[in-house]
Amino acid sequence: MHAADAGLDATLEPALREAVQGSAELFALLRAPWPEGGVERDTFGAGEQHAHDLLLARGRALGLETSVDFAGNLWLTSPGHDRGAPAWVTGSHLDSVPQGGNYDGAAGVVAGLAVLQALHACGQRPRRDIVLAAFRAEEASSWYRGDFQSHVGSRAALGMLDPQELQRARHLRDGRSLYDGMVSAGARPQEIRLGHRSIDPSRCHGFLELHIEQGPVLVERGLPVGVVTGIRGSARAREATIHGVDAHSGAVPHEYRHDAVLAGAEFCHRMDQAWTRVRAEGGDLVFTVGRLFTDAQRHSITKVPGRLDFSIDLRSQNAATLERMVTLARHLAGEIATARRVRIDLGAFNTSHPAVMDPKLVDSLDAGCAQLKIPAMRLPSGAGHDAADFAAAGVPTAMIFVRNDHGSHNPHEAMNLDDFAHATRLLAWQLLQ
Amino acid sequence: MHAADAGLDATLEPALREAVQGSAELFALLRAPWPEGGVERDTFGAGEQHAHDLLLARGRALGLETSVDFAGNLWLTSPGHDRGAPAWVTGSHLDSVPQGGNYDGAAGVVAGLAVLQALHACGQRPRRDIVLAAFRAEEASSWYRGDFQSHVGSRAALGMLDPQELQRARHLRDGRSLYDGMVSAGARPQEIRLGHRSIDPSRCHGFLELHIEQGPVLVERGLPVGVVTGIRGSARAREATIHGVDAHSGAVPHEYRHDAVLAGAEFCHRMDQAWTRVRAEGGDLVFTVGRLFTDAQRHSITKVPGRLDFSIDLRSQNAATLERMVTLARHLAGEIATARRVRIDLGAFNTSHPAVMDPKLVDSLDAGCAQLKIPAMRLPSGAGHDAADFAAAGVPTAMIFVRNDHGSHNPHEAMNLDDFAHATRLLAWQLLQ
Repeated sequence: MHAADAGLDATLEPALREAVQGSAELFALLRAPWPEGGVERDTFGAGEQHAHDLLLARGRALGLETSVDFAGNLWLTSPGHDRGAPAWVTGSHLDSVPQGGNYDGAAGVVAGLAVLQALHACGQRPRRDIVLAAFRAEEASSWYRGDFQSHVGSRAALGMLDPQELQRARHLRDGRSLYDGMVSAGARPQEIRLGHRSIDPSRCHGFLELHIEQGPVLVERGLPVGVVTGIRGSARAREATIHGVDAHSGAVPHEYRHDAVLAGAEFCHRMDQAWTRVRAEGGDLVFTVGRLFTDAQRHSITKVPGRLDFSIDLRSQNAATLERMVTLARHLAGEIATARRVRIDLGAFNTSHPAVMDPKLVDSLDAGCAQLKIPAMRLPSGAGHDAADFAAAGVPTAMIFVRNDHGSHNPHEAMNLDDFAHATRLLAWQLLQ
Repeated sequence: MHAADAGLDATLEPALREAVQGSAELFALLRAPWPEGGVERDTFGAGEQHAHDLLLARGRALGLETSVDFAGNLWLTSPGHDRGAPAWVTGSHLDSVPQGGNYDGAAGVVAGLAVLQALHACGQRPRRDIVLAAFRAEEASSWYRGDFQSHVGSRAALGMLDPQELQRARHLRDGRSLYDGMVSAGARPQEIRLGHRSIDPSRCHGFLELHIEQGPVLVERGLPVGVVTGIRGSARAREATIHGVDAHSGAVPHEYRHDAVLAGAEFCHRMDQAWTRVRAEGGDLVFTVGRLFTDAQRHSITKVPGRLDFSIDLRSQNAATLERMVTLARHLAGEIATARRVRIDLGAFNTSHPAVMDPKLVDSLDAGCAQLKIPAMRLPSGAGHDAADFAAAGVPTAMIFVRNDHGSHNPHEAMNLDDFAHATRLLAWQLLQ
């Protein structure tokens, strides 16, 4: 029988069950500094370090090869029979957003550790190296502001980080640079300037990331596990503005108004209608105007509003869909500004490219779910992940989602340990193919 | 020749010219406490009192009959030949909004004084009494908050004020009641409870109010004077809200969203389209969403917005149009809430009825403009005025607008003294018919 047609090894299955049960204790230790309320594993701060320290100690206890790279990422390696073969890499990040939950990021690292622990308990050595990565700073944009991209740890590891970003990113609380934040965490950002990387994509057999689902799809569908088909890219306008003219709401007739709000309402509603058309054609898209506001210092029920500020977040698995929507947004802005005698400035769109998951790996994970009798579905990831960077670097990449209630980035993340066990079995099954 | 076919009396015309020139000095004295920036004639406060003191002194100097009523309104009477005939009443208010301009309100009182001064200079006695009223507290809703209506002085004078309003209105700065504010200004609000009034509508031949235009129509059309056809009523929702659910902007697909902003955009845009239809049918309407905002404490570019707050201000000369729009707003709110899985709470609509100007007086003012060679047009008043209360009390009422740049309720009100002279000539002409 070919491996892909079989379930997990008969000795590994109970060892994995035991390791997963031990994960409950590890999750409790990860949460310990915040016994109530939101977890704050601040990027390159004490909160994130607490998690890295825990994982490093666990890796050492299991006799794994351990290293911490110049960006502060932790690497735990279970050596394979063929140490010259490209390695399987799995993992996720250990930082969180402010007032975040215990599972976003950490679940993927703890799952990888459970697999390595089960292999260790059975005395099994994999065919190729299995490397567990605990990345830094995936949530950097929740702690730092400025013109930079998040996923700092995984991009640094892959040699994909522009060193200038580390100067442009400034901490939201104290304004210090991300560069200085890394130094204070014991990392060596100066090596980034030299072009260092800590992993060569061509030495990766594949990258697998287990992560809680951040949306409600698996909860709504009643499924413990999802196989991710792709990671949506985004096009975001952070600070769009409409400039009109304040005026008396009773005394100024329509033809002399420069109404920023009604211009904004038309813009948002027509973008919304375009979103409906994309969905009707079977396209993948989400469209969000998360921030929308008149000026609290000068707005009034009896004033025609002279200014409206808003944000745009477009996400799709299809780069062409994103481009089409940005083009439409610019077209609508021009048309509406002329018709309504206002100025619409959408500003720059920051874009990130969609990441396509490796079709063979996705098929394989589907087969694994069937073998392991795990109810599952395919779905896209709307949020970005370290996996997207591995996919961008050309590494065959896939993701496993675990059902999670109440969304993520909040203290109410609710991942069931049974669901986590299913997903970890699938991860182990794939890593041992 | 019938009076209506003639211009102003040959001796009165130069006397009025001189009185209007003196108005420049009076306007300067009215502005004196605020040599730079915005005028603050606070309702029942020191700023308003400054103006009342000036006008009372002027009235005494001209030998006019003077009185201050229980609400603090000032009445200056030029006795007519037939003291038993119903009187002409003219005037406006002397208070301003915070950081307001020098002309909103005061122009109408100063114009009336110029007419009485010119009559005095010529030794002319009008056929019937001409009474100049300087009302208190027309702008009370800019200084006090709570469930009450503005135009406190004129409504009190006409016996139309609910004494409960004086307790419900609380000063924005110190929270004291409007009742206490009146007492501290030397007024006798206890008389309102007894049903007092200071003027009997049946003893008014008519009410004429001269006021700066608060919109841009006369400026845009290049005309110094407007004859007001009616005063728009309003229907206002101060605190409308849309309740959705915060969610991840990338990870939550359309079918699981409860997006407050896109619901609000549809609502505003469809109300806007209904406004276009009303205008196309020749109806009178303005529609303003002056305040519109997501929650600054929790909104984010990457969050589906769970809440939107906004205001609605509808104004029309036609009460049926207002009713139709409020009905439509409630219908749209229900339809959109269901379709978009949100809760829309428009709250109560506060309404004020439109006031129709007396058609004969409007025709007469048109004729006066022709006689006096004053370029003028008819237009509605979008803002409320003391005149609306006289119209509601059944007094034949009309208004004369003076061209004014930069709108009103701001320090940049810009009324030209030549335009003021034209409007004051028209006022004098009508009061002497």
